[in-house]
Amino acid sequence: MSAFPEVTKVLYEGPASKNPLAFRFYNPDEVVEGKTMAEHLKFSAAYWHTICGTGADPFGPGTMLRPWDSAACCPLEKAKTRGRVFFEFCEKIQMPYYCFHDTDIAPEGETLADFQANLDAVTAVFAEEQQRTGVKLLWGTSNLFSNPRYMHGAATSCHADAFAFAAAQVKKTMELTKMLGGSGYTFWGGREGYQCLWNTNMKREIDHLAAFMHMAVNYAKEIGFTGQFYFEPKPKEPTKHQYDYDCAACINFLRAYGLEDYVKMNIETNHATLAGHTVEHEIDYAGMQGMLGSVDANAGDLLLGWDTDEFPFNVYETTFAMYEILKAGGFTNGGLNFDSKSRRPSYTYEDMFKSFILGMDSFALGLVKAVAIIEDGRIDAFVKERYSSYETTEYGRRIRGGTATLAELAGIAEGLGAPALPGSGRQEELESIVNQILFG
Amino acid sequence: MSAFPEVTKVLYEGPASKNPLAFRFYNPDEVVEGKTMAEHLKFSAAYWHTICGTGADPFGPGTMLRPWDSAACCPLEKAKTRGRVFFEFCEKIQMPYYCFHDTDIAPEGETLADFQANLDAVTAVFAEEQQRTGVKLLWGTSNLFSNPRYMHGAATSCHADAFAFAAAQVKKTMELTKMLGGSGYTFWGGREGYQCLWNTNMKREIDHLAAFMHMAVNYAKEIGFTGQFYFEPKPKEPTKHQYDYDCAACINFLRAYGLEDYVKMNIETNHATLAGHTVEHEIDYAGMQGMLGSVDANAGDLLLGWDTDEFPFNVYETTFAMYEILKAGGFTNGGLNFDSKSRRPSYTYEDMFKSFILGMDSFALGLVKAVAIIEDGRIDAFVKERYSSYETTEYGRRIRGGTATLAELAGIAEGLGAPALPGSGRQEELESIVNQILFG
Amino acid sequence: MSAFPEVTKVLYEGPASKNPLAFRFYNPDEVVEGKTMAEHLKFSAAYWHTICGTGADPFGPGTMLRPWDSAACCPLEKAKTRGRVFFEFCEKIQMPYYCFHDTDIAPEGETLADFQANLDAVTAVFAEEQQRTGVKLLWGTSNLFSNPRYMHGAATSCHADAFAFAAAQVKKTMELTKMLGGSGYTFWGGREGYQCLWNTNMKREIDHLAAFMHMAVNYAKEIGFTGQFYFEPKPKEPTKHQYDYDCAACINFLRAYGLEDYVKMNIETNHATLAGHTVEHEIDYAGMQGMLGSVDANAGDLLLGWDTDEFPFNVYETTFAMYEILKAGGFTNGGLNFDSKSRRPSYTYEDMFKSFILGMDSFALGLVKAVAIIEDGRIDAFVKERYSSYETTEYGRRIRGGTATLAELAGIAEGLGAPALPGSGRQEELESIVNQILFG
Amino acid sequence: MSAFPEVTKVLYEGPASKNPLAFRFYNPDEVVEGKTMAEHLKFSAAYWHTICGTGADPFGPGTMLRPWDSAACCPLEKAKTRGRVFFEFCEKIQMPYYCFHDTDIAPEGETLADFQANLDAVTAVFAEEQQRTGVKLLWGTSNLFSNPRYMHGAATSCHADAFAFAAAQVKKTMELTKMLGGSGYTFWGGREGYQCLWNTNMKREIDHLAAFMHMAVNYAKEIGFTGQFYFEPKPKEPTKHQYDYDCAACINFLRAYGLEDYVKMNIETNHATLAGHTVEHEIDYAGMQGMLGSVDANAGDLLLGWDTDEFPFNVYETTFAMYEILKAGGFTNGGLNFDSKSRRPSYTYEDMFKSFILGMDSFALGLVKAVAIIEDGRIDAFVKERYSSYETTEYGRRIRGGTATLAELAGIAEGLGAPALPGSGRQEELESIVNQILFG
Repeated sequence: MSAFPEVTKVLYEGPASKNPLAFRFYNPDEVVEGKTMAEHLKFSAAYWHTICGTGADPFGPGTMLRPWDSAACCPLEKAKTRGRVFFEFCEKIQMPYYCFHDTDIAPEGETLADFQANLDAVTAVFAEEQQRTGVKLLWGTSNLFSNPRYMHGAATSCHADAFAFAAAQVKKTMELTKMLGGSGYTFWGGREGYQCLWNTNMKREIDHLAAFMHMAVNYAKEIGFTGQFYFEPKPKEPTKHQYDYDCAACINFLRAYGLEDYVKMNIETNHATLAGHTVEHEIDYAGMQGMLGSVDANAGDLLLGWDTDEFPFNVYETTFAMYEILKAGGFTNGGLNFDSKSRRPSYTYEDMFKSFILGMDSFALGLVKAVAIIEDGRIDAFVKERYSSYETTEYGRRIRGGTATLAELAGIAEGLGAPALPGSGRQEELESIVNQILFG
Repeated sequence: MSAFPEVTKVLYEGPASKNPLAFRFYNPDEVVEGKTMAEHLKFSAAYWHTICGTGADPFGPGTMLRPWDSAACCPLEKAKTRGRVFFEFCEKIQMPYYCFHDTDIAPEGETLADFQANLDAVTAVFAEEQQRTGVKLLWGTSNLFSNPRYMHGAATSCHADAFAFAAAQVKKTMELTKMLGGSGYTFWGGREGYQCLWNTNMKREIDHLAAFMHMAVNYAKEIGFTGQFYFEPKPKEPTKHQYDYDCAACINFLRAYGLEDYVKMNIETNHATLAGHTVEHEIDYAGMQGMLGSVDANAGDLLLGWDTDEFPFNVYETTFAMYEILKAGGFTNGGLNFDSKSRRPSYTYEDMFKSFILGMDSFALGLVKAVAIIEDGRIDAFVKERYSSYETTEYGRRIRGGTATLAELAGIAEGLGAPALPGSGRQEELESIVNQILFG
Repeated sequence: MSAFPEVTKVLYEGPASKNPLAFRFYNPDEVVEGKTMAEHLKFSAAYWHTICGTGADPFGPGTMLRPWDSAACCPLEKAKTRGRVFFEFCEKIQMPYYCFHDTDIAPEGETLADFQANLDAVTAVFAEEQQRTGVKLLWGTSNLFSNPRYMHGAATSCHADAFAFAAAQVKKTMELTKMLGGSGYTFWGGREGYQCLWNTNMKREIDHLAAFMHMAVNYAKEIGFTGQFYFEPKPKEPTKHQYDYDCAACINFLRAYGLEDYVKMNIETNHATLAGHTVEHEIDYAGMQGMLGSVDANAGDLLLGWDTDEFPFNVYETTFAMYEILKAGGFTNGGLNFDSKSRRPSYTYEDMFKSFILGMDSFALGLVKAVAIIEDGRIDAFVKERYSSYETTEYGRRIRGGTATLAELAGIAEGLGAPALPGSGRQEELESIVNQILFG
Repeated sequence: MSAFPEVTKVLYEGPASKNPLAFRFYNPDEVVEGKTMAEHLKFSAAYWHTICGTGADPFGPGTMLRPWDSAACCPLEKAKTRGRVFFEFCEKIQMPYYCFHDTDIAPEGETLADFQANLDAVTAVFAEEQQRTGVKLLWGTSNLFSNPRYMHGAATSCHADAFAFAAAQVKKTMELTKMLGGSGYTFWGGREGYQCLWNTNMKREIDHLAAFMHMAVNYAKEIGFTGQFYFEPKPKEPTKHQYDYDCAACINFLRAYGLEDYVKMNIETNHATLAGHTVEHEIDYAGMQGMLGSVDANAGDLLLGWDTDEFPFNVYETTFAMYEILKAGGFTNGGLNFDSKSRRPSYTYEDMFKSFILGMDSFALGLVKAVAIIEDGRIDAFVKERYSSYETTEYGRRIRGGTATLAELAGIAEGLGAPALPGSGRQEELESIVNQILFG
């Protein structure tokens, strides 16, 4: 029985199509730079927003029309139905991957044992559906922030019981991720931070977080889970301040506690902007340290101060993100996971499809435009030329080689007299080139 | 000849005084928690704002009435006069320390040799004045951002000539800092960042910054400069994005390049808030990693998006900052440097004194209140109790000891059934205690 | 049967008390400037947060322990129980006023008729409880933003049915407010704005909002409701942009549509800051136009971009707010309504009391300090002197009288030659005075 | 003698051109929707940034290479030379209009009389150059914020002398604007606001601002200046809070003081965003009240909190701005004035040309895309349909006609039972349409 009987598989119809249920730019099998669009982009749907999202916000309850939800007889059946609807949706929207939290997919029940039994029952359905559809698991994660027991955090909770429950959840989710063939496990510490510094021992909490991650790394080895661990930065919300503020805070933490070889970054656009960064900055920053793992694709509104998780729309942003991803060598285990939700007033299930079409077309455009910028070559050539004095001068080479000294360079500087200016940055010219490639 | 003939030494007159040129709260010799206020606070005046500040802003030129400036016959004499006026000011305001940039204190002249000769001439005056007044140098720094040659940065410039000039400046300033008995050297990378990511090779620039700092560390060893190196975070302004964004970005950089044993943080309040953090967060964060060096004391306006460098006024802020400084063990080489400027319309030299009185009294209050909070003990006792399950349970101790495993903790969690909530965070009660201590 | 059997009436015990369930600064009957604290402050509790608040946030469900909620047999009984608990709370915390939304106090049921019957049943309890306790209604309002029918707004909905439902709700709430002796009715347009300008006809929506308010004004006349109408600014959240952005937007709207004689402002601290203003600015701005009505007392966190509705804690803010309220002549119909909620981890009902104690003590301090600033007189005297040239010069008086001309003033200016600077703004000196009065 | 001998007139070469000194999208004579691009866009160059901009910022002096500046023998000659260079630049870049401040174009000298004589001498050159080139004056304005006498504001200064000087400047600038055939005069109140509310009498200051504008309106009548007055919103910077915060604040002020028939808005993109609005919002908002006058075209960086005045680059923004301008009926007296500056590291005069090419091409694209959206019709049709219930129902028509009552609508609502949801907002579908039109 279909949840979307009126919607057939969403197909590529080209830029001129006025069919709202077709791709105009995402053509999965089209080859760009030696790989298909699908291989480059590795799109994923977030189970939580896609199938669990209700449209609720702090000022009103859900609006989404999801008739299959009300049809279910009990929580566990509802969870299984949702799973089947989700895979039908993925098939019809041509979505190759998905991601989930444990609490998204199965009801928590009264006890941990109930929860684990529910997870087993639902993931059995998922395994079947993966088999049937070919949709694959990109990564799994545990929700360690919604249950009231995590009100002060999970691994960073002031209470060891909360820590223990979190450990139990991670253990189970990792096992399920392995069983489902997932290629990654993500830590997003929704409440791993503080609400008020007066009641917080920050060092102690961060020590505990490190202990927690080490346990996870050890358990992965023990069970042979070979997927990549990801750490997802977000500066704030729900808490006032989160320890995983941005890539710098995350990577510093990993280095400080000897975790840098086991964990990479899962970068989200809207989290980057809440921390004052562009997503391209965060991708470049992680990439240059070998720490780029995966990307949560969405968009924020820079005039709003909370996480709006909008579907990607702005092709400047998708182009720059794809440019940096390509420069970092593209994805290995990771992908572009749409951690995005339809606006509350977009409440029909047609809107579900249209939202993903928006996001997938925007990133397909971004890929094509990023490749065009690289192939055009003017920008890269300018950047290369810009730093050339570090290759063309002896002392430039010594600086890069780590053998120059202050005294030697002071002597060089004295000899330069009144030096020439260092060359225009040509920002406006480069921006014109970008617009030419985007709109020409 | 006095620059401030009408102003006598500013003295402590107690909270009831209506003399605008007296301290009401800062009583340098008063002993608090075993040390004098002066020893705890280690106040410093920033040479640049105090004596070079004109009140100019992007929408208008300077307003400050500084008659000694116009009286000078030539740049070098003006520089020397400023030095003498500055030390008179420090004496009269009871300021024990100061900080400077090389370009603040001496004219750059036409060539590097001119600049260095000017620096020698002016620092000779400084040495005399230090001797005469007992005022000491907290730290020195080089201005590597104003000269047009640094338009793209200095250590991170795309051009090796700019790097070489920067090296020459740092070398000289370090020598002068040593000669003047300074206990620190600060890196603040005004333009060590980018304006536009399209024209920037971020990895290359950050590699160069690390090379630069290593050279400085090596040169310090060579000349026997034993002061502390500081790295000062600021997220943006003048550039769009700076590599020294916040403590996390700075410390991650130091760890990545093997510099963490040589450099500590110089934390500025207004820079912290521009990065989305409170200053108390940054102090706690640096302190817990052993990286707290010094503090640039000022205040921002959280409704404004640029660095306003106001004199500290808010006693909540000074109390929380002092609480974290005391918790981190207080200052060793560092101090509280007023990187603060009088508002443009506060243009008289009486305003100079009143501004410092505001700042010094606000921090004296902060010290007294922070000590009172610690002595009161209710807050600290609550925090200690809050984490006690990590001591009172066997598995809590194993988590802290690093020997717990996910499997073991999952077993514990199963045994807990439906666990109790983890205890109220009591934020509002703690805030009432803070207000009681501040206003009671 | 008491909901809070262990809590007795919260009493004033003075600044030294360590009893967490006592006032340290709020002494209701203490006379300040000719009125009691209670008369000046006119505190009110917001029914929605106080008794309906669960602690839920976008990342997790409620945490608050409210045993009376789970004890109720059905929605209507639960609503009545909540009413009784609320009035017990008001009695014990010495709260003289309250405010409510229609949907807070009674279940909506299936139809409008159900809802209205439920409202009648619950407000009958309220009327009894008001009688019993002496607690009075400050203002009522209709919730026109939570029900999915208002997803696009209510008075500004694209659909006339939503408009009609909103009209029905306002009509009923106004009748109930009159019946309960309320002295005001507030419009807060939670979704009166847009999510996306591409799908919005802004002029049309604002025209409709004006039509709606005119109908309400007319109906008030018809039924003899003589309370004050209030319009509450908020710039955004839940929508991207709200038409009641700030006082300027609201008052401009009222003037444009001939509503300025019927509606005043209800100013909320955290809404002001989300719009980029301080609350003292908004109070001064409304007050100078005769538009100050009432104040929603809470506090935001300026490093967070959403409405956190914290209990007031910062005495600088409460002092400045009270200073402006006193300058505007104090409250007539309005008051200080705590539109504030305990933090999610403050989940016990002791925290309810402690939260209000924090808020009430903070505003009592603010009142006392504002009065002290006025009595001290130095700040007001400086401000008066600052503008004195508009009284002491002939042309100054003509400017104020509206009779000066450009040509005449140009002649004056020519005669002034190189004029003196206009006098220091003395911001730092004034801030020192404020700190002296707050902490001296 | 040419200032730009190597640069010939910048011509349209079409989207494929790789000539950095050609237009790719701006084709002045191309007809779009019945008018040429030049007629629609009415581009203007801001004299201040274009020819006076040095690249200085708060952290460093100017960088711009402008050899003609250093060649001049004295301030007045320099001013004349700059004028000639500016008109050559306008010719070569095909700029039809310009705008100026009085202090941009002539040195202030020692006295007002000097300044006025200088203005006369320089504007004589301008008059000639206008004649020679056909370049026209869009609007003039007086700089009432840079001179230290305006440190507390001009019309809102606490000192009547400053007010008188400001009056003299406005009088003269209005006369010159008339002489040069300018079609507007703009008020931008750089310091018409406050730095600190403690030392400010806001009502008094705003009263004075109104008196000032009335004098200007009267003087315009007196001398027969028939250009349009504009009021330009900016929320803050340089002051903490400006009275012309946004369009709402400006229009409310105009209505409150009876100025609404004489003054329209001059809306600047970066000022809008600093106030928390998009520029399209501000254009729509002003337009719906008949208050759209002119637009200062630039772009801000939403991750930075100050006015960066970048050249327009983002075609989403230019498209939305042009869409709203077209919907408001296009420009009459106003135009698109590039209040934009090249980045500090774009210091060559080739960068001047490239910067304007970026801005002009971006707005030409915006015009073409906005027209395409309108011609496509899908978005407008959806919006029209969305509000149709106000035409198709009797009570909808009565709401719009102002004859509906709460009682009547309550009856309607009762009859609706459980109403249908109001229709999806379809934001994501509309955004896909926008991307199709921009990139298809």
